[in-house]
Amino acid sequence: MDLLGTFVFGLSGAMLAVRRDLDLFGILVLSLVAATAGGALRDMLIGATPAAFLSDQRYFVAALLAGVVVFFGHAQIEKLTRPVMVLDALGLGLFAVTGAQKALAYDLGPMGAIWIGVLTACGGGALRDVLVAEVPRVLCEEIYALAALLGALIVVLGHGAGWPAGLTAVCGAALASAWRIVSVYRGWQVPRARKR
Amino acid sequence: MDLLGTFVFGLSGAMLAVRRDLDLFGILVLSLVAATAGGALRDMLIGATPAAFLSDQRYFVAALLAGVVVFFGHAQIEKLTRPVMVLDALGLGLFAVTGAQKALAYDLGPMGAIWIGVLTACGGGALRDVLVAEVPRVLCEEIYALAALLGALIVVLGHGAGWPAGLTAVCGAALASAWRIVSVYRGWQVPRARKR
Amino acid sequence: MDLLGTFVFGLSGAMLAVRRDLDLFGILVLSLVAATAGGALRDMLIGATPAAFLSDQRYFVAALLAGVVVFFGHAQIEKLTRPVMVLDALGLGLFAVTGAQKALAYDLGPMGAIWIGVLTACGGGALRDVLVAEVPRVLCEEIYALAALLGALIVVLGHGAGWPAGLTAVCGAALASAWRIVSVYRGWQVPRARKR
Repeated sequence: MDLLGTFVFGLSGAMLAVRRDLDLFGILVLSLVAATAGGALRDMLIGATPAAFLSDQRYFVAALLAGVVVFFGHAQIEKLTRPVMVLDALGLGLFAVTGAQKALAYDLGPMGAIWIGVLTACGGGALRDVLVAEVPRVLCEEIYALAALLGALIVVLGHGAGWPAGLTAVCGAALASAWRIVSVYRGWQVPRARKR
Repeated sequence: MDLLGTFVFGLSGAMLAVRRDLDLFGILVLSLVAATAGGALRDMLIGATPAAFLSDQRYFVAALLAGVVVFFGHAQIEKLTRPVMVLDALGLGLFAVTGAQKALAYDLGPMGAIWIGVLTACGGGALRDVLVAEVPRVLCEEIYALAALLGALIVVLGHGAGWPAGLTAVCGAALASAWRIVSVYRGWQVPRARKR
Repeated sequence: MDLLGTFVFGLSGAMLAVRRDLDLFGILVLSLVAATAGGALRDMLIGATPAAFLSDQRYFVAALLAGVVVFFGHAQIEKLTRPVMVLDALGLGLFAVTGAQKALAYDLGPMGAIWIGVLTACGGGALRDVLVAEVPRVLCEEIYALAALLGALIVVLGHGAGWPAGLTAVCGAALASAWRIVSVYRGWQVPRARKR
């Protein structure tokens, strides 16, 4: 499951790289960054070094495979908007939940754990966008980061209430993913500050 | 005091988010980033993990409060240019001093400690600007980073000379803040390289 | 040698800062970032904190010296395209090799070590470009990152095969630098994905 999330996040990085006309190497780098930077940021912030993805070849394989798939099949993938969005939402929920769990295992307080969950889920995508000099979409679009926050929040609440960790993880990831998917279909938005 | 600095830096992030038309969540994220990223970078670089702000709920409260205040009152705050600038200068001096002190406590040499002080004071604002795809203002504007450097330098010199830590901290923060404020009023600038 | 690489990377940061019309302080910061951020990222990711450059004054001196040289002599340096490119290629090979070696010393697997080598060599330049709101050149230009990958790959292969570390380091750095230099002269490029 975790590898599937890595693969889908890798797809998002590679698609953006193709759109910005980067070469094959740029595509692979952006796959890797989108797929692993969220977890790497989490691990650097909580001190779980070396960062987890560095020691596990499978994350590299999943992310780079995403890059290769996009290099050859980006025209096909561009048509699969819906499946890619749904998979991305699953990755989002999953990364938020595992991020918050790892933060709790490192004895962070509730707010720290929630924030780490959000960063794990959204950090890779944010860095991906920064690297092509765009404002991270997570900052200006829909319910993306809020869904991650919901997933992390459920994990932290469940931890506080002593619920079984596996159950809250599944609930958190499922609700976060579901909210993200529904919000895309419904076009829900977060309120903006009224400008003069 | 430290929390006041966090709050003011949070204000700067939230104001920028409003100007760039981000939604409420983007505003809160940019508050949090502007307020905490400098300290987080410091802690990751010197190995003081988990990063300090993650374990202390009050930093979250201060930064998010700044975001909420701006969301509802940005029109009013925009008029308070001077008080906000003065508070920001105080935060700058304070963060530079605490950053350099923490670096010295981790046995860094003088140059490392000064640089960590500058990064602590300026890193949050730099990341804030990068996230909205702007060149960090700290790189191209006035005496901002130089004031931080002065504060950190005083701490490092005082440490080397064996002066009492509390005294050098107060002096460093006060002089850095004062220099920043005066430089804004006087319009002082750092020299630029002469172009062909 | 390592310091020479730091100096040349510092030059690249400072030249970019002059081109973007930053003040003296911005020039020095961009020198420092371009020269040290790759190594700092490596150390944060593998947990070798405090980051190495923070404890060694000579890196600061080399990077800041590069900034000062550019501040006064940027018109001359701009004409030295070739020597600067060759020195930069040497820095590239060197940083890739030392990065991969350090990662292996921290017990990372082969893919982790290669990626750390690439990040060490390219991370400083990437952050340099991000800070002036440009797409990192390493993502869209020639064989740059691929040459770093070659250097790191040779170190990792030699480590796996039990070859003497010094020998593989020299070979890796030399081949990476040579490939980079030749690719610039020949105008080699990495393939791009075919767009519709």
